[in-house]
Amino acid sequence: MQRYFIKSDQINNPHIDIIGEDCFHIQKVMRMKVGDCVICCDQIHSYIARIDNISVDSINLTIIEELLNEVELPCSITIAQGLVMRDKMETVIDNITELGANTYIPVRMEFSNAKWNDEKNDKRMTRLNKIAKEASEQSHRTKILNVLEPISFEDLLGLNNQYDLCLFAYEKASAEQSLRKLIKNKKLQNILVLVGPEGGISKEEVSKLMDNNFIPITLGPRILRTEVAPAFIMSALSYELEEENDI
Amino acid sequence: MQRYFIKSDQINNPHIDIIGEDCFHIQKVMRMKVGDCVICCDQIHSYIARIDNISVDSINLTIIEELLNEVELPCSITIAQGLVMRDKMETVIDNITELGANTYIPVRMEFSNAKWNDEKNDKRMTRLNKIAKEASEQSHRTKILNVLEPISFEDLLGLNNQYDLCLFAYEKASAEQSLRKLIKNKKLQNILVLVGPEGGISKEEVSKLMDNNFIPITLGPRILRTEVAPAFIMSALSYELEEENDI
Repeated sequence: MQRYFIKSDQINNPHIDIIGEDCFHIQKVMRMKVGDCVICCDQIHSYIARIDNISVDSINLTIIEELLNEVELPCSITIAQGLVMRDKMETVIDNITELGANTYIPVRMEFSNAKWNDEKNDKRMTRLNKIAKEASEQSHRTKILNVLEPISFEDLLGLNNQYDLCLFAYEKASAEQSLRKLIKNKKLQNILVLVGPEGGISKEEVSKLMDNNFIPITLGPRILRTEVAPAFIMSALSYELEEENDI
Repeated sequence: MQRYFIKSDQINNPHIDIIGEDCFHIQKVMRMKVGDCVICCDQIHSYIARIDNISVDSINLTIIEELLNEVELPCSITIAQGLVMRDKMETVIDNITELGANTYIPVRMEFSNAKWNDEKNDKRMTRLNKIAKEASEQSHRTKILNVLEPISFEDLLGLNNQYDLCLFAYEKASAEQSLRKLIKNKKLQNILVLVGPEGGISKEEVSKLMDNNFIPITLGPRILRTEVAPAFIMSALSYELEEENDI
Protein backbone atom coordinates (compact mmCIF):
# COMPACT_ATOMS: atom_id res chain seq x y z
CA MET A 1 0.00 0.00 0.00
CA GLN A 2 1.28 3.49 -0.86
CA ARG A 3 2.74 5.47 2.10
CA TYR A 4 2.72 9.18 2.76
CA PHE A 5 4.47 11.15 5.48
CA ILE A 6 2.23 13.86 6.92
CA LYS A 7 2.55 16.38 9.75
CA SER A 8 0.81 15.68 13.05
CA ASP A 9 -1.50 18.68 12.58
CA GLN A 10 -2.94 17.04 9.45
CA ILE A 11 -4.45 14.37 11.72
CA ASN A 12 -7.66 15.07 13.60
CA ASN A 13 -8.56 11.52 14.59
CA PRO A 14 -10.40 9.85 12.86
CA HIS A 15 -9.88 12.39 10.05
CA ILE A 16 -6.73 13.05 8.01
CA ASP A 17 -6.15 15.72 5.37
CA ILE A 18 -3.45 15.26 2.75
CA ILE A 19 -2.26 18.44 1.03
CA GLY A 20 0.58 19.68 -1.20
CA GLU A 21 2.73 17.45 -3.44
CA ASP A 22 1.33 14.22 -1.98
CA CYS A 23 -2.14 15.32 -3.02
CA PHE A 24 -0.94 15.61 -6.63
CA HIS A 25 0.84 12.24 -6.33
CA ILE A 26 -2.30 10.43 -5.13
CA GLN A 27 -4.48 11.88 -7.90
CA LYS A 28 -2.20 12.12 -10.89
CA VAL A 29 0.55 9.54 -10.36
CA MET A 30 -1.30 6.83 -8.43
CA ARG A 31 -4.70 7.71 -9.98
CA MET A 32 -6.49 6.75 -6.78
CA LYS A 33 -10.23 7.13 -6.29
CA VAL A 34 -12.61 7.63 -3.35
CA GLY A 35 -12.65 4.37 -1.37
CA ASP A 36 -8.97 3.53 -2.02
CA CYS A 37 -6.70 3.22 1.02
CA VAL A 38 -3.20 4.56 1.78
CA ILE A 39 -0.88 4.51 4.79
CA CYS A 40 -0.38 7.87 6.53
CA CYS A 41 2.48 8.32 8.94
CA ASP A 42 3.35 11.32 11.13
CA GLN A 43 6.68 9.77 12.31
CA ILE A 44 5.01 8.67 15.57
CA HIS A 45 1.95 6.74 14.42
CA SER A 46 1.07 4.96 11.18
CA TYR A 47 -2.51 4.56 10.02
CA ILE A 48 -4.34 2.83 7.20
CA ALA A 49 -6.77 5.50 5.97
CA ARG A 50 -9.55 5.46 3.36
CA ILE A 51 -10.01 8.27 0.85
CA ASP A 52 -13.40 9.96 1.37
CA ASN A 53 -13.12 13.02 -0.80
CA ILE A 54 -10.74 14.30 -3.50
CA SER A 55 -10.35 17.93 -4.56
CA VAL A 56 -7.56 19.70 -6.45
CA ASP A 57 -5.57 20.80 -3.39
CA SER A 58 -6.69 18.48 -0.60
CA ILE A 59 -7.70 14.88 0.03
CA ASN A 60 -9.84 13.91 3.03
CA LEU A 61 -9.43 10.49 4.58
CA THR A 62 -10.80 8.47 7.49
CA ILE A 63 -8.57 6.30 9.67
CA ILE A 64 -9.44 2.60 9.39
CA GLU A 65 -6.81 1.22 11.77
CA GLU A 66 -3.47 2.04 13.37
CA LEU A 67 -0.45 0.01 12.27
CA LEU A 68 1.59 -1.25 15.19
CA ASN A 69 4.41 -3.20 13.52
CA GLU A 70 7.81 -2.03 14.71
CA VAL A 71 10.03 -1.28 11.73
CA GLU A 72 12.45 1.12 13.42
CA LEU A 73 15.77 0.02 14.94
CA PRO A 74 15.73 -0.34 18.75
CA CYS A 75 18.64 2.12 18.93
CA SER A 76 18.91 5.48 17.18
CA ILE A 77 21.88 5.51 14.77
CA THR A 78 23.58 8.66 13.50
CA ILE A 79 25.98 8.36 10.57
CA ALA A 80 28.45 11.25 10.39
CA GLN A 81 30.58 11.37 7.25
CA GLY A 82 33.41 13.56 6.03
CA LEU A 83 31.93 15.82 3.34
CA VAL A 84 31.81 13.79 0.10
CA MET A 85 30.82 14.56 -3.50
CA ARG A 86 27.14 15.21 -4.13
CA ASP A 87 26.28 11.97 -5.93
CA LYS A 88 27.95 9.88 -3.24
CA MET A 89 26.19 11.78 -0.46
CA GLU A 90 22.84 11.18 -2.15
CA THR A 91 23.55 7.45 -2.53
CA VAL A 92 24.57 7.18 1.12
CA ILE A 93 21.46 9.06 2.32
CA ASP A 94 19.27 6.82 0.19
CA ASN A 95 20.92 3.61 1.40
CA ILE A 96 21.15 4.38 5.12
CA THR A 97 17.53 5.54 5.15
CA GLU A 98 16.45 2.14 3.84
CA LEU A 99 18.74 0.49 6.36
CA GLY A 100 17.14 2.32 9.30
CA ALA A 101 19.45 5.25 10.22
CA ASN A 102 18.04 8.12 12.27
CA THR A 103 20.36 11.04 11.36
CA TYR A 104 23.00 11.93 8.75
CA ILE A 105 25.61 14.60 9.47
CA PRO A 106 28.13 15.79 6.84
CA VAL A 107 31.35 16.94 8.52
CA ARG A 108 33.97 19.33 7.12
CA MET A 109 37.21 17.35 7.48
CA GLU A 110 40.83 17.86 6.51
CA PHE A 111 40.86 15.46 3.56
CA SER A 112 37.36 16.33 2.23
CA ASN A 113 37.75 17.19 -1.44
CA ALA A 114 34.08 17.98 -1.92
CA LYS A 115 32.83 21.54 -1.67
CA TRP A 116 29.52 22.65 -0.16
CA ASN A 117 28.34 25.85 -1.80
CA ASP A 118 26.71 27.82 1.02
CA GLU A 119 24.77 29.94 -1.48
CA LYS A 120 23.00 26.82 -2.72
CA ASN A 121 22.54 25.45 0.79
CA ASP A 122 18.74 25.66 0.91
CA LYS A 123 18.23 24.11 -2.52
CA ARG A 124 20.60 21.27 -1.70
CA MET A 125 19.02 20.57 1.70
CA THR A 126 15.58 20.47 0.09
CA ARG A 127 16.82 17.86 -2.39
CA LEU A 128 18.54 15.74 0.30
CA ASN A 129 15.42 15.82 2.49
CA LYS A 130 13.29 14.77 -0.48
CA ILE A 131 15.57 11.78 -1.11
CA ALA A 132 15.34 10.83 2.58
CA LYS A 133 11.53 11.16 2.59
CA GLU A 134 11.06 9.06 -0.54
CA ALA A 135 13.48 6.36 0.66
CA SER A 136 11.65 6.26 4.02
CA GLU A 137 8.32 5.77 2.25
CA GLN A 138 9.76 3.17 -0.09
CA SER A 139 11.24 1.11 2.75
CA HIS A 140 8.02 1.30 4.82
CA ARG A 141 9.63 3.24 7.67
CA THR A 142 7.70 5.28 10.20
CA LYS A 143 10.48 7.88 10.56
CA ILE A 144 12.25 10.06 8.01
CA LEU A 145 16.04 10.29 8.13
CA ASN A 146 17.07 13.58 9.68
CA VAL A 147 19.67 15.23 7.38
CA LEU A 148 21.74 17.99 8.99
CA GLU A 149 23.64 20.79 7.27
CA PRO A 150 27.44 20.33 7.26
CA ILE A 151 29.13 20.94 10.62
CA SER A 152 32.79 21.57 11.48
CA PHE A 153 35.03 18.80 12.82
CA GLU A 154 35.21 20.62 16.16
CA ASP A 155 31.40 20.68 16.38
CA LEU A 156 31.38 16.93 15.73
CA LEU A 157 33.80 16.38 18.63
CA GLY A 158 31.44 18.38 20.84
CA LEU A 159 28.59 15.92 20.15
CA ASN A 160 30.30 13.21 22.23
CA ASN A 161 28.16 13.83 25.32
CA GLN A 162 24.91 13.48 23.38
CA TYR A 163 25.46 9.82 22.49
CA ASP A 164 25.86 6.62 24.51
CA LEU A 165 28.62 5.59 22.11
CA CYS A 166 30.70 7.51 19.54
CA LEU A 167 32.68 5.40 17.07
CA PHE A 168 34.77 6.04 13.98
CA ALA A 169 35.68 3.65 11.19
CA TYR A 170 39.45 3.38 11.02
CA GLU A 171 41.33 0.78 9.02
CA LYS A 172 44.23 0.78 11.48
CA ALA A 173 42.00 0.21 14.51
CA SER A 174 43.13 -2.65 16.73
CA ALA A 175 40.73 -5.56 17.02
CA GLU A 176 40.51 -5.11 20.78
CA GLN A 177 37.58 -2.72 20.51
CA SER A 178 35.37 -4.59 18.07
CA LEU A 179 31.94 -3.32 17.03
CA ARG A 180 30.46 -6.58 18.32
CA LYS A 181 31.99 -6.21 21.79
CA LEU A 182 31.01 -2.55 21.99
CA ILE A 183 27.32 -3.08 21.25
CA LYS A 184 26.41 -6.68 22.14
CA ASN A 185 24.01 -6.98 25.08
CA LYS A 186 24.30 -3.28 25.92
CA LYS A 187 21.15 -1.21 26.28
CA LEU A 188 22.23 1.69 24.07
CA GLN A 189 19.81 4.50 23.27
CA ASN A 190 21.87 6.10 20.54
CA ILE A 191 25.14 5.58 18.67
CA LEU A 192 27.11 7.91 16.39
CA VAL A 193 29.49 6.42 13.81
CA LEU A 194 31.86 8.63 11.82
CA VAL A 195 33.13 7.54 8.41
CA GLY A 196 35.98 9.53 6.83
CA PRO A 197 35.72 11.26 3.43
CA GLU A 198 37.27 9.76 0.25
CA GLY A 199 40.71 10.94 1.37
CA GLY A 200 40.44 9.30 4.80
CA ILE A 201 40.94 10.67 8.30
CA SER A 202 44.14 12.62 9.05
CA LYS A 203 46.47 11.63 11.90
CA GLU A 204 45.64 14.82 13.75
CA GLU A 205 41.90 14.12 13.43
CA VAL A 206 42.39 10.55 14.69
CA SER A 207 44.21 11.89 17.72
CA LYS A 208 41.49 14.50 18.44
CA LEU A 209 38.76 11.86 18.04
CA MET A 210 40.50 9.59 20.57
CA ASP A 211 40.91 12.52 22.99
CA ASN A 212 37.15 13.09 22.78
CA ASN A 213 36.13 9.50 23.53
CA PHE A 214 35.44 8.45 19.95
CA ILE A 215 36.38 4.76 19.70
CA PRO A 216 38.07 3.43 16.52
CA ILE A 217 36.52 0.31 14.95
CA THR A 218 37.47 -1.75 11.89
CA LEU A 219 34.91 -2.75 9.27
CA GLY A 220 36.57 -6.08 8.59
CA PRO A 221 39.65 -7.13 6.61
CA ARG A 222 38.70 -5.51 3.30
CA ILE A 223 38.99 -1.78 2.61
CA LEU A 224 35.56 -0.20 2.02
CA ARG A 225 35.05 3.04 0.13
CA THR A 226 33.40 5.88 2.03
CA GLU A 227 30.15 5.39 0.09
CA VAL A 228 29.92 1.67 0.98
CA ALA A 229 31.07 1.86 4.63
CA PRO A 230 27.84 3.46 5.96
CA ALA A 231 25.73 0.66 4.41
CA PHE A 232 28.01 -1.92 6.01
CA ILE A 233 27.72 -0.22 9.41
CA MET A 234 23.92 0.04 9.22
CA SER A 235 23.59 -3.60 8.04
CA ALA A 236 25.85 -4.92 10.81
CA LEU A 237 24.02 -2.87 13.46
CA SER A 238 20.64 -4.02 12.15
CA TYR A 239 21.82 -7.64 12.14
CA GLU A 240 23.13 -7.35 15.71
CA LEU A 241 20.44 -5.16 17.29
CA GLU A 242 17.34 -6.60 15.63
CA GLU A 243 18.04 -10.13 16.76
CA GLU A 244 14.51 -10.37 18.12
CA ASN A 245 13.28 -9.73 14.60
CA ASP A 246 15.20 -12.82 13.59
CA ILE A 247 16.96 -11.58 10.51
CA MET B 1 50.37 0.42 -1.90
CA GLN B 2 48.93 0.02 -5.41
CA ARG B 3 47.62 -3.48 -6.23
CA TYR B 4 47.58 -5.34 -9.54
CA PHE B 5 45.96 -8.63 -10.42
CA ILE B 6 48.18 -10.75 -12.63
CA LYS B 7 48.01 -14.26 -14.09
CA SER B 8 49.99 -17.06 -12.43
CA ASP B 9 52.17 -17.46 -15.54
CA GLN B 10 53.42 -13.90 -15.08
CA ILE B 11 55.18 -15.09 -11.92
CA ASN B 12 58.48 -16.92 -12.14
CA ASN B 13 59.56 -16.64 -8.50
CA PRO B 14 61.32 -14.36 -7.57
CA HIS B 15 60.54 -12.56 -10.86
CA ILE B 16 57.24 -11.02 -11.98
CA ASP B 17 56.39 -9.43 -15.33
CA ILE B 18 53.53 -6.96 -15.60
CA ILE B 19 52.14 -6.43 -19.10
CA GLY B 20 49.11 -4.89 -20.84
CA GLU B 21 46.88 -2.17 -19.34
CA ASP B 22 48.47 -2.42 -15.89
CA CYS B 23 51.83 -1.58 -17.46
CA PHE B 24 50.38 1.65 -18.83
CA HIS B 25 48.72 2.36 -15.46
CA ILE B 26 51.98 2.01 -13.53
CA GLN B 27 53.93 4.27 -15.90
CA LYS B 28 51.45 6.90 -16.99
CA VAL B 29 48.81 7.05 -14.23
CA MET B 30 50.87 6.23 -11.13
CA ARG B 31 54.12 7.60 -12.65
CA MET B 32 56.16 5.00 -10.81
CA LYS B 33 59.91 4.61 -11.19
CA VAL B 34 62.45 1.80 -10.83
CA GLY B 35 62.75 1.00 -7.11
CA ASP B 36 59.06 1.68 -6.34
CA CYS B 37 57.01 -1.21 -4.95
CA VAL B 38 53.53 -2.56 -5.79
CA ILE B 39 51.45 -5.52 -4.65
CA CYS B 40 50.95 -8.28 -7.24
CA CYS B 41 48.25 -10.87 -6.74
CA ASP B 42 47.43 -13.98 -8.82
CA GLN B 43 44.25 -14.77 -6.80
CA ILE B 44 46.17 -17.38 -4.79
CA HIS B 45 49.21 -15.49 -3.50
CA SER B 46 49.91 -11.80 -2.92
CA TYR B 47 53.41 -10.38 -3.09
CA ILE B 48 55.11 -7.05 -2.47
CA ALA B 49 57.37 -6.62 -5.52
CA ARG B 50 59.95 -3.99 -6.45
CA ILE B 51 60.15 -2.51 -9.95
CA ASP B 52 63.52 -3.36 -11.54
CA ASN B 53 62.98 -2.33 -15.13
CA ILE B 54 60.39 -0.34 -17.09
CA SER B 55 59.84 -0.55 -20.83
CA VAL B 56 56.88 0.49 -22.98
CA ASP B 57 55.07 -2.84 -22.93
CA SER B 58 56.42 -4.66 -19.88
CA ILE B 59 57.60 -4.03 -16.35
CA ASN B 60 59.96 -6.44 -14.56
CA LEU B 61 59.77 -6.78 -10.81
CA THR B 62 61.39 -8.80 -8.02
CA ILE B 63 59.38 -10.28 -5.16
CA ILE B 64 60.33 -8.76 -1.78
CA GLU B 65 57.92 -10.71 0.42
CA GLU B 66 54.68 -12.68 0.33
CA LEU B 67 51.65 -11.15 2.04
CA LEU B 68 49.87 -13.61 4.29
CA ASN B 69 46.99 -11.56 5.73
CA GLU B 70 43.64 -13.23 5.18
CA VAL B 71 41.21 -10.78 3.63
CA GLU B 72 38.81 -13.28 2.07
CA LEU B 73 35.62 -14.47 3.78
CA PRO B 74 35.90 -17.95 5.36
CA CYS B 75 32.90 -19.05 3.25
CA SER B 76 32.41 -18.51 -0.47
CA ILE B 77 29.29 -16.37 -1.12
CA THR B 78 27.39 -16.29 -4.40
CA ILE B 79 24.85 -13.52 -4.94
CA ALA B 80 22.26 -14.39 -7.57
CA GLN B 81 19.95 -11.57 -8.61
CA GLY B 82 16.98 -11.24 -10.90
CA LEU B 83 18.20 -9.39 -14.00
CA VAL B 84 18.21 -5.66 -13.16
CA MET B 85 18.97 -2.49 -15.10
CA ARG B 86 22.57 -1.95 -16.15
CA ASP B 87 23.45 0.85 -13.71
CA LYS B 88 22.02 -1.08 -10.78
CA MET B 89 23.88 -4.25 -11.76
CA GLU B 90 27.13 -2.32 -11.95
CA THR B 91 26.56 -0.76 -8.50
CA VAL B 92 25.76 -4.17 -7.00
CA ILE B 93 28.85 -5.78 -8.55
CA ASP B 94 31.02 -2.94 -7.27
CA ASN B 95 29.56 -3.09 -3.74
CA ILE B 96 29.52 -6.87 -3.25
CA THR B 97 33.09 -7.13 -4.54
CA GLU B 98 34.23 -4.74 -1.82
CA LEU B 99 32.15 -6.66 0.69
CA GLY B 100 33.82 -9.96 -0.18
CA ALA B 101 31.47 -11.89 -2.50
CA ASN B 102 32.87 -14.72 -4.60
CA THR B 103 30.40 -14.92 -7.53
CA TYR B 104 27.58 -12.85 -9.07
CA ILE B 105 24.91 -14.52 -11.21
CA PRO B 106 22.20 -12.53 -13.05
CA VAL B 107 19.04 -14.63 -13.40
CA ARG B 108 16.26 -14.20 -15.97
CA MET B 109 13.11 -14.03 -13.80
CA GLU B 110 9.43 -13.44 -14.40
CA PHE B 111 9.33 -9.86 -13.09
CA SER B 112 12.69 -8.74 -14.55
CA ASN B 113 12.06 -5.59 -16.55
CA ALA B 114 15.67 -5.24 -17.63
CA LYS B 115 16.79 -6.61 -20.97
CA TRP B 116 20.13 -8.26 -21.73
CA ASN B 117 21.09 -7.71 -25.35
CA ASP B 118 22.80 -10.94 -26.37
CA GLU B 119 24.50 -9.22 -29.30
CA LYS B 120 26.33 -6.93 -26.86
CA ASN B 121 27.04 -9.78 -24.45
CA ASP B 122 30.83 -9.81 -24.84
CA LYS B 123 31.20 -6.04 -24.51
CA ARG B 124 29.02 -5.98 -21.44
CA MET B 125 30.79 -8.89 -19.75
CA THR B 126 34.15 -7.18 -20.38
CA ARG B 127 32.87 -4.04 -18.66
CA LEU B 128 31.40 -5.95 -15.69
CA ASN B 129 34.62 -7.92 -15.21
CA LYS B 130 36.63 -4.68 -15.33
CA ILE B 131 34.42 -3.19 -12.57
CA ALA B 132 34.91 -6.35 -10.49
CA LYS B 133 38.69 -6.31 -11.01
CA GLU B 134 39.05 -2.65 -10.06
CA ALA B 135 36.81 -2.99 -6.99
CA SER B 136 38.86 -6.05 -5.92
CA GLU B 137 42.08 -4.09 -6.21
CA GLN B 138 40.61 -1.07 -4.44
CA SER B 139 39.38 -3.14 -1.49
CA HIS B 140 42.71 -5.03 -1.18
CA ARG B 141 41.19 -8.41 -1.98
CA THR B 142 43.20 -11.37 -3.19
CA LYS B 143 40.34 -12.70 -5.37
CA ILE B 144 38.35 -11.09 -8.15
CA LEU B 145 34.56 -11.44 -8.11
CA ASN B 146 33.49 -14.04 -10.66
CA VAL B 147 30.70 -12.51 -12.83
CA LEU B 148 28.61 -15.03 -14.77
CA GLU B 149 26.51 -14.41 -17.87
CA PRO B 150 22.72 -14.42 -17.24
CA ILE B 151 21.21 -17.84 -16.63
CA SER B 152 17.59 -19.02 -16.72
CA PHE B 153 15.55 -19.45 -13.54
CA GLU B 154 15.49 -23.21 -14.16
CA ASP B 155 19.29 -23.27 -14.36
CA LEU B 156 19.42 -21.44 -11.04
CA LEU B 157 17.20 -24.10 -9.44
CA GLY B 158 19.60 -26.75 -10.74
CA LEU B 159 22.49 -25.17 -8.80
CA ASN B 160 21.01 -26.29 -5.46
CA ASN B 161 23.30 -29.33 -5.16
CA GLN B 162 26.45 -27.25 -5.65
CA TYR B 163 26.00 -25.23 -2.47
CA ASP B 164 25.84 -26.09 1.25
CA LEU B 165 23.00 -23.62 1.59
CA CYS B 166 20.69 -21.91 -0.94
CA LEU B 167 18.67 -18.95 0.35
CA PHE B 168 16.37 -16.34 -1.14
CA ALA B 169 15.39 -12.94 0.26
CA TYR B 170 11.64 -12.85 0.65
CA GLU B 171 9.76 -10.19 2.59
CA LYS B 172 7.00 -12.63 3.53
CA ALA B 173 9.42 -15.22 4.94
CA SER B 174 8.54 -16.43 8.41
CA ALA B 175 11.06 -15.63 11.10
CA GLU B 176 11.47 -19.33 11.91
CA GLN B 177 14.29 -19.73 9.42
CA SER B 178 16.43 -16.73 10.25
CA LEU B 179 19.75 -16.02 8.51
CA ARG B 180 21.42 -16.10 11.93
CA LYS B 181 20.08 -19.57 12.81
CA LEU B 182 20.93 -20.91 9.36
CA ILE B 183 24.59 -19.88 9.40
CA LYS B 184 25.69 -19.49 13.03
CA ASN B 185 28.27 -22.07 14.15
CA LYS B 186 27.87 -24.09 10.93
CA LYS B 187 30.95 -24.99 8.94
CA LEU B 188 29.63 -23.92 5.55
CA GLN B 189 31.88 -23.99 2.48
CA ASN B 190 29.61 -22.00 0.21
CA ILE B 191 26.26 -20.22 0.27
CA LEU B 192 24.07 -18.91 -2.56
CA VAL B 193 21.62 -16.08 -1.85
CA LEU B 194 19.05 -15.04 -4.46
CA VAL B 195 17.62 -11.50 -4.48
CA GLY B 196 14.61 -10.79 -6.70
CA PRO B 197 14.60 -8.15 -9.47
CA GLU B 198 12.93 -4.70 -8.98
CA GLY B 199 9.53 -6.29 -9.54
CA GLY B 200 10.05 -8.98 -6.89
CA ILE B 201 9.70 -12.76 -7.03
CA SER B 202 6.49 -14.25 -8.43
CA LYS B 203 4.36 -16.71 -6.43
CA GLU B 204 5.17 -19.47 -8.89
CA GLU B 205 8.91 -18.77 -8.55
CA VAL B 206 8.63 -18.83 -4.74
CA SER B 207 6.95 -22.18 -4.90
CA LYS B 208 9.59 -23.60 -7.29
CA LEU B 209 12.40 -22.26 -5.09
CA MET B 210 10.91 -23.98 -2.03
CA ASP B 211 10.50 -27.23 -3.97
CA ASN B 212 14.22 -27.06 -4.80
CA ASN B 213 15.43 -26.55 -1.21
CA PHE B 214 15.96 -22.79 -1.43
CA ILE B 215 15.14 -21.38 2.02
CA PRO B 216 13.32 -18.02 2.34
CA ILE B 217 14.91 -15.44 4.68
CA THR B 218 13.88 -11.92 5.68
CA LEU B 219 16.31 -9.02 5.63
CA GLY B 220 14.76 -7.32 8.66
CA PRO B 221 11.62 -5.25 9.17
CA ARG B 222 12.31 -2.62 6.50
CA ILE B 223 11.83 -3.20 2.77
CA LEU B 224 15.14 -3.03 0.89
CA ARG B 225 15.41 -2.29 -2.81
CA THR B 226 17.05 -4.95 -4.98
CA GLU B 227 20.21 -2.82 -5.32
CA VAL B 228 20.64 -2.44 -1.54
CA ALA B 229 19.69 -5.99 -0.46
CA PRO B 230 22.93 -7.64 -1.72
CA ALA B 231 25.06 -5.16 0.30
CA PHE B 232 22.97 -5.93 3.39
CA ILE B 233 23.40 -9.68 2.87
CA MET B 234 27.15 -9.42 2.37
CA SER B 235 27.57 -7.11 5.39
CA ALA B 236 25.52 -9.36 7.66
CA LEU B 237 27.42 -12.47 6.48
CA SER B 238 30.77 -10.72 6.95
CA TYR B 239 29.73 -9.57 10.43
CA GLU B 240 28.62 -13.09 11.39
CA LEU B 241 31.30 -15.18 9.68
CA GLU B 242 34.36 -13.02 10.31
CA GLU B 243 33.89 -12.98 14.07
CA GLU B 244 37.49 -14.06 14.51
CA ASN B 245 38.50 -10.88 12.69
CA ASP B 246 36.63 -8.98 15.40
CA ILE B 247 34.68 -6.54 13.31
